[in-house]
Amino acid sequence: MELLFALLILLILTRAFGEMAHRLGQPALLGELVAGVALGVTVKFFDGVSPFIADLPNDRVFLALTDLGIFFLMLYGGVELRASKLAEVSGNSFFVAACGLFLPAAVGLGVAWAWLPESPLKLAQALFVGVALAITAVPVSIRLLMDLGQLNSKAGQTIVAAAIIDDVLSLVLLAVLVGMMAEGGSVSAAIVLRLTGSIVAFFVIAYFVGHVVVPHVGRFVRSLRTAEFEFSSLLLAALGFAVLAELLNLHFVLGAFVAGLLFERRSAGYAVYEEVKKRLSAVTLGFLAPIFFASIGLHLDLSAAREIPLFLSLLIVVAFVTKLLGAGIPAWLSGLSPRDATAVGVGMSARGAVELIVADIALRAGLFAHPDPPPPIVAHLFSAIVIVALVTTLVTPIALRRVFSGAGSGSRPIG
Amino acid sequence: MELLFALLILLILTRAFGEMAHRLGQPALLGELVAGVALGVTVKFFDGVSPFIADLPNDRVFLALTDLGIFFLMLYGGVELRASKLAEVSGNSFFVAACGLFLPAAVGLGVAWAWLPESPLKLAQALFVGVALAITAVPVSIRLLMDLGQLNSKAGQTIVAAAIIDDVLSLVLLAVLVGMMAEGGSVSAAIVLRLTGSIVAFFVIAYFVGHVVVPHVGRFVRSLRTAEFEFSSLLLAALGFAVLAELLNLHFVLGAFVAGLLFERRSAGYAVYEEVKKRLSAVTLGFLAPIFFASIGLHLDLSAAREIPLFLSLLIVVAFVTKLLGAGIPAWLSGLSPRDATAVGVGMSARGAVELIVADIALRAGLFAHPDPPPPIVAHLFSAIVIVALVTTLVTPIALRRVFSGAGSGSRPIG
Repeated sequence: MELLFALLILLILTRAFGEMAHRLGQPALLGELVAGVALGVTVKFFDGVSPFIADLPNDRVFLALTDLGIFFLMLYGGVELRASKLAEVSGNSFFVAACGLFLPAAVGLGVAWAWLPESPLKLAQALFVGVALAITAVPVSIRLLMDLGQLNSKAGQTIVAAAIIDDVLSLVLLAVLVGMMAEGGSVSAAIVLRLTGSIVAFFVIAYFVGHVVVPHVGRFVRSLRTAEFEFSSLLLAALGFAVLAELLNLHFVLGAFVAGLLFERRSAGYAVYEEVKKRLSAVTLGFLAPIFFASIGLHLDLSAAREIPLFLSLLIVVAFVTKLLGAGIPAWLSGLSPRDATAVGVGMSARGAVELIVADIALRAGLFAHPDPPPPIVAHLFSAIVIVALVTTLVTPIALRRVFSGAGSGSRPIG
Repeated sequence: MELLFALLILLILTRAFGEMAHRLGQPALLGELVAGVALGVTVKFFDGVSPFIADLPNDRVFLALTDLGIFFLMLYGGVELRASKLAEVSGNSFFVAACGLFLPAAVGLGVAWAWLPESPLKLAQALFVGVALAITAVPVSIRLLMDLGQLNSKAGQTIVAAAIIDDVLSLVLLAVLVGMMAEGGSVSAAIVLRLTGSIVAFFVIAYFVGHVVVPHVGRFVRSLRTAEFEFSSLLLAALGFAVLAELLNLHFVLGAFVAGLLFERRSAGYAVYEEVKKRLSAVTLGFLAPIFFASIGLHLDLSAAREIPLFLSLLIVVAFVTKLLGAGIPAWLSGLSPRDATAVGVGMSARGAVELIVADIALRAGLFAHPDPPPPIVAHLFSAIVIVALVTTLVTPIALRRVFSGAGSGSRPIG
């Protein structure tokens, strides 16, 4: 059982580095990312020792487990988040999300357009850079805010709500990009319309299920006395919404998150809600999430830092500055204190897993194959985007913690 | 995400069939097995509709999830089982286990030797039949006894303890079989000695870790305050023991189970123990175990019933009668009431997943390739053993429930 061995190594490393990070006053998430980086580097030195561990980042079973990690993390985030508070801030959040998405996307697209060589895929490649920079990693944000005890603060809820909206919007852009690739490089109004229709359909179905179906089914489910039925029912709902999202060409994370949000409304009593949350937390924070965060660290590929250092540095600066200004200024305009607005701008910088997923999809779609043979800037574009994802995900916790501790909120990290 | 879709279908079916079984007064496990059979049959009719679902039983990711299901089920079984009670019955259990293993193995080997055609692999094939019939499915037994509320009864603990010992002994026989295959058909004393050494080493290390290392490490772990550390630590210990077992050429189930057993001793307080057990139960009974049981149902292949019905019937009769007499009579001799002794004989009949694993290993080792071309009895031997596993696993819950309800124990099924 090589899988059990890999899980053992990953859990030992993430627990040890997580505890170290905690003792140094950093969130556990940071330690778990570093654990992945450490394992990735070690593995490269001992290539022949364990081929299974060396090939772990590309292993189908391991990828499925990290997908389950993302799924549970999104579900837990939805359960943890108070839906009522989310509704309060959602007007502002949409403004923050739209600007925090538009600025990085536009600047990223512009920079890439100016630097990339002419080819049939140039527009698609530039759009890819824009989409990649526009992303905010919802699971990373949620875990980070949990670690900082800020998930239910005003800034925290703005970050999460805006990150969710950002995620949906950037997934639309990704779908457009993939559609463009499939049709050789052109944007079609039909594709955009169809995707908009999918999103509207998803939220209409989710609203209907949440407000009409669930109250009736909930009464039936509570009449069943099979052990662990509450936990299983939540899991079933989350899987159902995830599959619905996928069927509508959206990402499954959206379904898992919305199922988690609906759970609070549905749940009859506070006691049941707390019990289910505890169980979900054990699987998520105690097992699958550390594996997922370590997997981000494992993806380290530094070739872009060696080959295209200038372009890479530019991308990293753009990634931070455009999110800080694009999300921070609207947050400040919509009434948050300067410190909370800074926290929003900083907190939305982490690109995490979603950017890695986008990069992976682009790589598999053959986006980096033209011009043929590709010059260094195209050949190492994948590596550059992976590094941007890692750097933003590593720096955001440190920066956000500094902003919040400067604000004197007095909250203790729980992770 | 085809995996999420497959999980959704599996959880819906297992929950629905489990609830139906419960309403009919049967253990949920039975419904979950039938859900797998139903899915397996349906999938064959709609071969072209979903190639992913049709190929599910052979999918690497799905196999890894069922392995995780076995792992968590064994760990939960160990945690649930009271180690002190196990020690009380272990003397008797060894007697029960040895006879309950020897009789089916000897009769199975004899029947196979009499019926199988001459070939270089005849001895290995006959030994395979003997090993397959000697197995008792520990995870199935544990879940079944949990469903019946009999896990901590005298008969229940005898069944589990004897099943564990049986499992270890039959894994030794399996290793001998695989060793034989590798060397063209001969049993070597060196192989037997090496395996015996491994088992002794495993239990010596487990005893040392449990009584010397754990009390010290436990104090250190309790000084760490990272969220979910207790659950994670148990998981780490279980993974560690599972890897140790695999390194010693034993099966990982042994490691997971022993880690669960040690947890009770180690745990400082009753409250922590109960909390961790609840969380483990949610992942196990609410998520992974139903998937594992459905996967057994999915393996249905009825070709042996059509091609070699007489030999198959004989194997099924031998499977039940030899376990009933081989385990029941020693249980009765060691002081159990006739009804409890019958329960032991009946309860040890389920072969479940371990037999499927053994059959799979034999198939991949090329055991059914001689004589070349293989006559029907050899060509369908794999299917026959799979059917024996399914029939014994389906019938045992019904029979055991009848024995216990006849005994007027008054316990209610919890599943």
